[in-house]
Amino acid sequence: MHIAYPTIATLVVFISSVAGSESLTSTVSDQAKALIASSYDYNVGYEIIESLTTEVGPRQAGSEAEERARRWGIGKLEQLGFSNVRIEPFDVEFWQRRSERAEIIAPFPQALAITSLGGSVGTPADGVHGEVARFSTLQALQDAPAEGLKGKIVFVDELMTRTQDGSGYGVAVAKRSGAANEAGKRGAVAALIRSVGTDHHRFPHTGQMIYNTDGAKVPIAALAAPDADQLQRALSRGTVEVKLELDVQSMGQRTSGNVLGEIPGSGDEIILIGAHLDSWDLGTGAIDDGAGIGITVAAAKLILDMKKIPKRTIRVVMFGSEEVGLIGAQAYAKRHLDELDLHIIGTESDFGAGKIWRLDSRVAQSQRHKISAIHKILQPLGISLGDNQASGGPDMGPMRKLGMPVVSLKQNGWDYFDFHHTADDTLDKINRADITQNVAAYAAFIWMVANMPGDFRVTKSQSDNATTPSQKD
Amino acid sequence: MHIAYPTIATLVVFISSVAGSESLTSTVSDQAKALIASSYDYNVGYEIIESLTTEVGPRQAGSEAEERARRWGIGKLEQLGFSNVRIEPFDVEFWQRRSERAEIIAPFPQALAITSLGGSVGTPADGVHGEVARFSTLQALQDAPAEGLKGKIVFVDELMTRTQDGSGYGVAVAKRSGAANEAGKRGAVAALIRSVGTDHHRFPHTGQMIYNTDGAKVPIAALAAPDADQLQRALSRGTVEVKLELDVQSMGQRTSGNVLGEIPGSGDEIILIGAHLDSWDLGTGAIDDGAGIGITVAAAKLILDMKKIPKRTIRVVMFGSEEVGLIGAQAYAKRHLDELDLHIIGTESDFGAGKIWRLDSRVAQSQRHKISAIHKILQPLGISLGDNQASGGPDMGPMRKLGMPVVSLKQNGWDYFDFHHTADDTLDKINRADITQNVAAYAAFIWMVANMPGDFRVTKSQSDNATTPSQKD
Repeated sequence: MHIAYPTIATLVVFISSVAGSESLTSTVSDQAKALIASSYDYNVGYEIIESLTTEVGPRQAGSEAEERARRWGIGKLEQLGFSNVRIEPFDVEFWQRRSERAEIIAPFPQALAITSLGGSVGTPADGVHGEVARFSTLQALQDAPAEGLKGKIVFVDELMTRTQDGSGYGVAVAKRSGAANEAGKRGAVAALIRSVGTDHHRFPHTGQMIYNTDGAKVPIAALAAPDADQLQRALSRGTVEVKLELDVQSMGQRTSGNVLGEIPGSGDEIILIGAHLDSWDLGTGAIDDGAGIGITVAAAKLILDMKKIPKRTIRVVMFGSEEVGLIGAQAYAKRHLDELDLHIIGTESDFGAGKIWRLDSRVAQSQRHKISAIHKILQPLGISLGDNQASGGPDMGPMRKLGMPVVSLKQNGWDYFDFHHTADDTLDKINRADITQNVAAYAAFIWMVANMPGDFRVTKSQSDNATTPSQKD
Repeated sequence: MHIAYPTIATLVVFISSVAGSESLTSTVSDQAKALIASSYDYNVGYEIIESLTTEVGPRQAGSEAEERARRWGIGKLEQLGFSNVRIEPFDVEFWQRRSERAEIIAPFPQALAITSLGGSVGTPADGVHGEVARFSTLQALQDAPAEGLKGKIVFVDELMTRTQDGSGYGVAVAKRSGAANEAGKRGAVAALIRSVGTDHHRFPHTGQMIYNTDGAKVPIAALAAPDADQLQRALSRGTVEVKLELDVQSMGQRTSGNVLGEIPGSGDEIILIGAHLDSWDLGTGAIDDGAGIGITVAAAKLILDMKKIPKRTIRVVMFGSEEVGLIGAQAYAKRHLDELDLHIIGTESDFGAGKIWRLDSRVAQSQRHKISAIHKILQPLGISLGDNQASGGPDMGPMRKLGMPVVSLKQNGWDYFDFHHTADDTLDKINRADITQNVAAYAAFIWMVANMPGDFRVTKSQSDNATTPSQKD
């Protein structure tokens, strides 16, 4: 068996190579190159981000502001000339932050910069207070005995690793739900975490947490990195007492929705691209995910302006309520289940505004040569060819799990978690030239997959066996 | 007369050169060099900053926290072995920030990151609102007609220039008082300014403002730079209405004070060094001015550890209530007026935690050669010789105006105004190696001026004619 392998491998390479040469016509690749060339001074991506973050600003899932964002989305897609522009509504639980405050009350009285995690219960109006019990990692808290934390405030002080591909996030984010659930089990009155972030500014990072169905629900907030340091220094001198006042609440079901627009193709098949429209409430959602909205809509607009009918319909989706658990993506998959086989490939832009440096895919291995052919066109943009383990972006998750092939046009995420889910996620963090590079890559990619022959289908077993993507995108 | 000049100049150089060689004995300069060498792995400066910012944290002028800072100062100076450790109390007006909030209410409802300026009056409990009238500079507001602003919110959107020496500050800071006073004169209901700062994070910068005695007092707050941008973008689309709720108040007179400690000299003369103990309430006052406290106290401690009695007393002063108008410095000058002539030279460290790059002085021109001699010892630390127009630091101002010679060991202020007067002024912004360089320079400087013969006296006329220092230090 060992000896037979090289022969088969050689054969596969040979077939792939032949298929590759057939996958992309010179007409389509020339059109893709022309799209890249025409994007050089194309500023529409940035203009869309500017418009959304200015005219709507923060747009939390289920809020009145998210409704305004949908109206903005409809107006923008119609104005740009997209077809079949519509809202597909669904319900979502709306969680509201009203005020929040924390302080060291002894031995060194001073305020701490914190923010509640989304979904947290509030404290009583006069707050909760208790002695702080610090754990350097979530694992250390999980390993702690069941007793000894009654009445205390648990503090999980785990640091996040800065990486280009965001792989530090998957590890660090576990404490968001984990800290409150472990604290609740052990009788603690509240939980604090060092923010899931990589910056050293005084911005706490919010983000969704989910309670276990069976445990006590204790309030949880994130400390800004300088405040986690400060608490650590105070604790190194002895016992520290902290007070926490969180006026936050789950307000029940509200209407949310996905906004869709299309460039109709000559056939029934669909290319799915998107980003998410909602943001956290603290910033104006420029990098998360105004950037993705700007990049994908501008890329499709660049194609619209070619005035050529693609073979496949290009469907742009602005997903609602991503931040609170991919609610819009699940609603999309449910509503479009009968179209599943028509979805040829999908991709989402939701990892900020950095340059794209890598093209990953998740397609049938037998179709991987088409990704290589596509990559050759994108390579001049500074994009390398990655692996076949792409997530496709969070909102592609439900459709990917049903078998839809995906790619990830992976952005440089080196500083993404400096701003992610903070008040500091604002337009000034966006570099116009980087947005232009993203738009060029998306436009060329979309045009190629919308017009090249054949399918990218992943076999069912490959989909099930796939490694869970470890990074956010 | 032209022809005579070179001769006189040559003569002056000759005399200076002779005097210079007499100004600093080889024993004293060798001791100064030894102080620099011994500071290489000396971490006391950083440790003092860490202690103050952790164990006290924010310490606003006149607050209970500033009282705790004085107790901390007494404890620290006694523990380190200083003599004559004491508090010299005085009264100060205490202004309190309780809560503050601003939002665009139309046409794009969203919160704005703002902070009240120190000394501002509050708004009524339900806030003030009005249409925003933007001025790109304070001058443009000053030039505006008296009518047309009634009921509006004036917005002075002037940018500050980033510089190494902080010279952008003097220009930019004028709007802090100017915007409110001009707005009040014209019937506006409130004033907003773009923060006096150079960062692009969502931190508004506070700072003291003073009302004219004769005008209407309108509330004033600073916008973080991204929020000033946002307001500018909203205004570029048409009329914008903003609401402002500032719960702030002047609370009347409270006790503040200066904390003093000494290394007694063999004679009556005094070398005055210091920094200010108070900070604004938003951050923990690490760069402003925990750094100065750490640098000056550690430098004096390095000298204490030599166990040699200096010729002159080295007096370390932690000034109170600097931020609200140099109240501690004025109290010091008043109380020590009878000692004025004994004050040989003074200097304050109050420009952050960057490396020292230049030695400026303000001494009699005939004594300037001594500064050159001192500079030769400091030069290996990367310090250049500057001009004879030093301010000596804000808290040296009252004594300098009375004729006390000063120097400024000027720090690199490139990023100082990124953090100055914000919540983000925390310990993590401090580089230990830079603090060590500062301590080395101060220790060597102090030892030299405490032991070298003669005086640095500025003539009265030179003092009066002096240019007002344009940068903060």
